[in-house]
Amino acid sequence: MSAQMDRLKKTLKDFFAEKSSTSKIMEAFEPGKPLDRRLFAIYLIETFHYTRHNARNQAAVAINHVDLDIRYMKYCLKHAHEEAGHEMMAFHDLKSLGYKGTVEKLPEPLPQTQTLIGYLYHVSKTGNPLARLGYSFWAERSYQYIEPMLGAIRDEFGIKKGGMTFFDEHSDIDTKHAAEVEEVIERTCKTDEDWKAIEDCMIMSLKLTGLMMKTVYEEFLLLQQGKSDRYAFLNESIQK
Amino acid sequence: MSAQMDRLKKTLKDFFAEKSSTSKIMEAFEPGKPLDRRLFAIYLIETFHYTRHNARNQAAVAINHVDLDIRYMKYCLKHAHEEAGHEMMAFHDLKSLGYKGTVEKLPEPLPQTQTLIGYLYHVSKTGNPLARLGYSFWAERSYQYIEPMLGAIRDEFGIKKGGMTFFDEHSDIDTKHAAEVEEVIERTCKTDEDWKAIEDCMIMSLKLTGLMMKTVYEEFLLLQQGKSDRYAFLNESIQK
Amino acid sequence: MSAQMDRLKKTLKDFFAEKSSTSKIMEAFEPGKPLDRRLFAIYLIETFHYTRHNARNQAAVAINHVDLDIRYMKYCLKHAHEEAGHEMMAFHDLKSLGYKGTVEKLPEPLPQTQTLIGYLYHVSKTGNPLARLGYSFWAERSYQYIEPMLGAIRDEFGIKKGGMTFFDEHSDIDTKHAAEVEEVIERTCKTDEDWKAIEDCMIMSLKLTGLMMKTVYEEFLLLQQGKSDRYAFLNESIQK
Amino acid sequence: MSAQMDRLKKTLKDFFAEKSSTSKIMEAFEPGKPLDRRLFAIYLIETFHYTRHNARNQAAVAINHVDLDIRYMKYCLKHAHEEAGHEMMAFHDLKSLGYKGTVEKLPEPLPQTQTLIGYLYHVSKTGNPLARLGYSFWAERSYQYIEPMLGAIRDEFGIKKGGMTFFDEHSDIDTKHAAEVEEVIERTCKTDEDWKAIEDCMIMSLKLTGLMMKTVYEEFLLLQQGKSDRYAFLNESIQK
Repeated sequence: MSAQMDRLKKTLKDFFAEKSSTSKIMEAFEPGKPLDRRLFAIYLIETFHYTRHNARNQAAVAINHVDLDIRYMKYCLKHAHEEAGHEMMAFHDLKSLGYKGTVEKLPEPLPQTQTLIGYLYHVSKTGNPLARLGYSFWAERSYQYIEPMLGAIRDEFGIKKGGMTFFDEHSDIDTKHAAEVEEVIERTCKTDEDWKAIEDCMIMSLKLTGLMMKTVYEEFLLLQQGKSDRYAFLNESIQK
Repeated sequence: MSAQMDRLKKTLKDFFAEKSSTSKIMEAFEPGKPLDRRLFAIYLIETFHYTRHNARNQAAVAINHVDLDIRYMKYCLKHAHEEAGHEMMAFHDLKSLGYKGTVEKLPEPLPQTQTLIGYLYHVSKTGNPLARLGYSFWAERSYQYIEPMLGAIRDEFGIKKGGMTFFDEHSDIDTKHAAEVEEVIERTCKTDEDWKAIEDCMIMSLKLTGLMMKTVYEEFLLLQQGKSDRYAFLNESIQK
Repeated sequence: MSAQMDRLKKTLKDFFAEKSSTSKIMEAFEPGKPLDRRLFAIYLIETFHYTRHNARNQAAVAINHVDLDIRYMKYCLKHAHEEAGHEMMAFHDLKSLGYKGTVEKLPEPLPQTQTLIGYLYHVSKTGNPLARLGYSFWAERSYQYIEPMLGAIRDEFGIKKGGMTFFDEHSDIDTKHAAEVEEVIERTCKTDEDWKAIEDCMIMSLKLTGLMMKTVYEEFLLLQQGKSDRYAFLNESIQK
Repeated sequence: MSAQMDRLKKTLKDFFAEKSSTSKIMEAFEPGKPLDRRLFAIYLIETFHYTRHNARNQAAVAINHVDLDIRYMKYCLKHAHEEAGHEMMAFHDLKSLGYKGTVEKLPEPLPQTQTLIGYLYHVSKTGNPLARLGYSFWAERSYQYIEPMLGAIRDEFGIKKGGMTFFDEHSDIDTKHAAEVEEVIERTCKTDEDWKAIEDCMIMSLKLTGLMMKTVYEEFLLLQQGKSDRYAFLNESIQK
C-alpha cells in the first residue's frame, strides 16, 4: 500500500470519527430509541434519487474525457454497469414499508440531494478524470459505519431480510468493490494532483451526503409536526 | 406584486437577517477590523471561478429544454449575453491587488465552489426550467447586503474606483436587473410548483454561496498559519 | 477583405453554381412549373425542426468551450438570442397553408434533418470553436440563391406577405447579419486551421442541407404516389 | 423471429445488394486490382476516429434517458464496455503499415466522419432511446459484406494476421454480438415507432458510413495527384 493510500484511508477514518455532519440521523436510529418508519421512508426516497444517477455520472467520466486511459475507461463503464438499477432496491424497500405508488409519483429530490447529484456530474464531466474515484472509495467502505444504524432499524421494526435489499446488497459486495477501487486508484494515480483530486472529491461528497442526511432528518421533524407538504403522503401509506 | 412574489422577498430577507452561514466572512470584513488583502484575493479567485460559469449555466437553460417558452428562452440568452466575461472583472481586481500571473496559473476552484457550479448546471439543465430564476433573483439583489463589507474593504485598503470593478459594475446594474428578473418571474410562473422551484433554487444557491464564503475564510486562516499549499503563491504577490 | 475571406466567398459561390445537391427541390419550384403546396409544407416542417436547434447549437459554442475569447462568446450568445424562436415562423407559415394541428403533433424530423442537427451540435461543442461560423456564413447569404424559388412559390400560390414570414424575415435581416458574420470571422480567425475549420463546416452543412432538401423532395414523391405514412396527414389539411 | 425482425434484415440485405453508396471504395479494393496502402491507411485513420466515439455514444444512451428500462440500460453499458478502446486496434494496424507518429499527431476526422459521429451522439442522446440499436444491428453483421475486401487487402499486401487486428477482432466476435443485438431488439421493442426508429437509424448510419468511405476514396485520389495537404504525411511513412 502506498503512502498516499494510507493517508486517504486515515482522512476517511478521521471524517467518520468526527461525524459532526452525519450525527443527527445516526442518533435518531440509535439502538433503543423509539423509531418512526417515516424517517426511514424519507431516507429511502432520497437514496432512490441520488442512486439513480450514480451509474450515470460514473459512465459520464468515460464519455466526457476523450483522451482517457483505456483501462480506466473500461473500469468506469464496468462499474457503471454494476451500479445500474440499484435505485430500484431502495424503491423496493420503500414499498416493503407500505408505499403503494409508482416511481413517477415520488416527490422530486430535495435541493440538498440535487446538490449531491449535480456535484457528482460536474466532477465526473470536468477537471481531473480520476476525481470521482474519491466518491467510490468511501461509498464502498461506508457500510461498516452504517451497520449499527441498519441493525437498529432491522431490530426495531422487525424488518425481514427482503425488506432492506438496498443495504444488504451493498454490504455483500462491499469487500470486493472496496478492494477493486483501491487497486484502480493505486494503478491509475500518477501525480500528487491526482491524489488530491480524489481526496477532495471524497471529502466533498461525504459532506454533501451528510448535508442530505441532515436535511432528511429536518424534513422528518417537519412531517412529525404536521408541517410537511412534500412528504405528507407518507402518513397514509407508512405505518409509524 | 403577487402574493407569491411577496413571499419570495420575505424568504430572502429572512435568510439574510439570520445570516448564520455568511457571517464569518462578513465579520472579517466589518468596519474597523484590521484587514488582510489576501482574504480578499482568495475571495476574488473563487468569485472568478463561479462567475465564469454563470453565463454558461444561464444559457444551458435555453439549450437543454427543447419545448421552452420562447420569450423565456430569449430572456435566458439575453441575460447570458450580459453576464458573459464578468469573471474577468474579478480577475482584473485580483491583478489590482498585485497578482502577476495569468488566468491559467490560478488554482482550481475549491470543492465548495465546484459544488455551487455543479448545482447550478444541474438545476439549469434538468427539472423545472424556471428554477434558475431563483439564483438570479437573489444575486441581483445581494449588493445591498454586501455593500457595508465592500465599503470596509475600500476604506481600509484605500482601493481606488478601478480596483473593485466586479462589485462596482454589479452594483450599478443592480436595480435594473432586479426589476427585470422580478418581471420575468411574475410573467412566467404559472403554477405553485414553479414558485416552489424558484424558492428552492434561491435558498439552496444562497446556502452554497455561504458555504463557499465560509470555506474561503477557513482557507485564509490556513494561509495565515502558513498551512496552505493552495494559496501560498499569494504571499509573494499580495501585500498584506 | 483578407485573401482567406475572398477564398471563402469563392468556395461558396462555386458550390451554388454547381448546385448538384440542391437541384431537385429547386427545379420543382422553378417558375412556370405546376406546384404542389404539400411539397412546400414538408419543406416547412423540416425547416421548423432544424431551425429549432439553431439558437441552441449556436449557444452551445459558448457553453462548451470554457476558455473562449470573450468577445466571440458574446457574439455567439447575441446571435443565439436573435435566432431563438425563428422556428415558429416556419410553423406559422405551415398553418397559413392550412395545417390545423399543434407543434407536438408534427412528425419527428427526417433522419437527414437529424443528421444536420447532430452535425451542428457536434461541431459547436467540440473541436475548433470557430467552425460553426461557417454555417452562419452561408446561411446568412443564401437568400439570394433561394430568392427565385421563393418568388415562384409566392406567385404560383398567391401567398400573401404574411404567409412566408420565415423567408421574408430572413431576407430582411440578410445584409446586416452577413456583414456581421464576415466581421466576426475576420476579427477572430488567427490561423490557417481556423479558416479551414470554417470552410469545412460551411461545405459540410451545405451538403447536409442539400441532402435534407433532396430527401424532402423524395418524401413528397412518395406522398404523391400515396406511399407516405409520415406525411399522409397533409392530404387532409393542405390544399394541393 | 418476429415479422418486424424479418423486415429489418431484408432492408439491410437490400441496402448492401444495391451498394450504390459504398461501391467506390469496394471497387478499389476488389481482388486483382493493384492496391495502394495509403488508401488503407486513410481508411484506418477515419475508422480510428469514429470508433473512438462508439463506446461513448453507446453509453450516452444510458446517461441521457433517466427513465430507461433498466435491463436495456445495462445492455448499453455492457456493450459500451466491450467497445471501449477498439479504436486502438485501428491505430495499431496503421502503425503496422508504417506510421511512426502518435495518436495526437493524426489529422482531425474528415467532416463526413464528424457527421457520422455527430449523428450517432444525437440519436443516442435524444428521441427514441432504442434507435441506436439500428447502428449496432448492421455494424455487427457487416463483416460478411466486407470480408471479400479484407481478403483482397490481406493477399495483395501480404499483411500478416497481426496487422489487421481491427477487422479480425470484429469478425471473431461477429456472430456472438449479432445474436445478442437481435435478442435485445426483439425483447425491448414494443411499438411500431420503436421498430421504425431502429430502421431509420440503421439506414441513416449506413448511408453516413458510405459517405465517409466515399470521401476516404476521394481524399486518396487527391493524395495520389499530390493535392492533399491533410494526408501528405502518409507519403513519408506508408510504403505504396
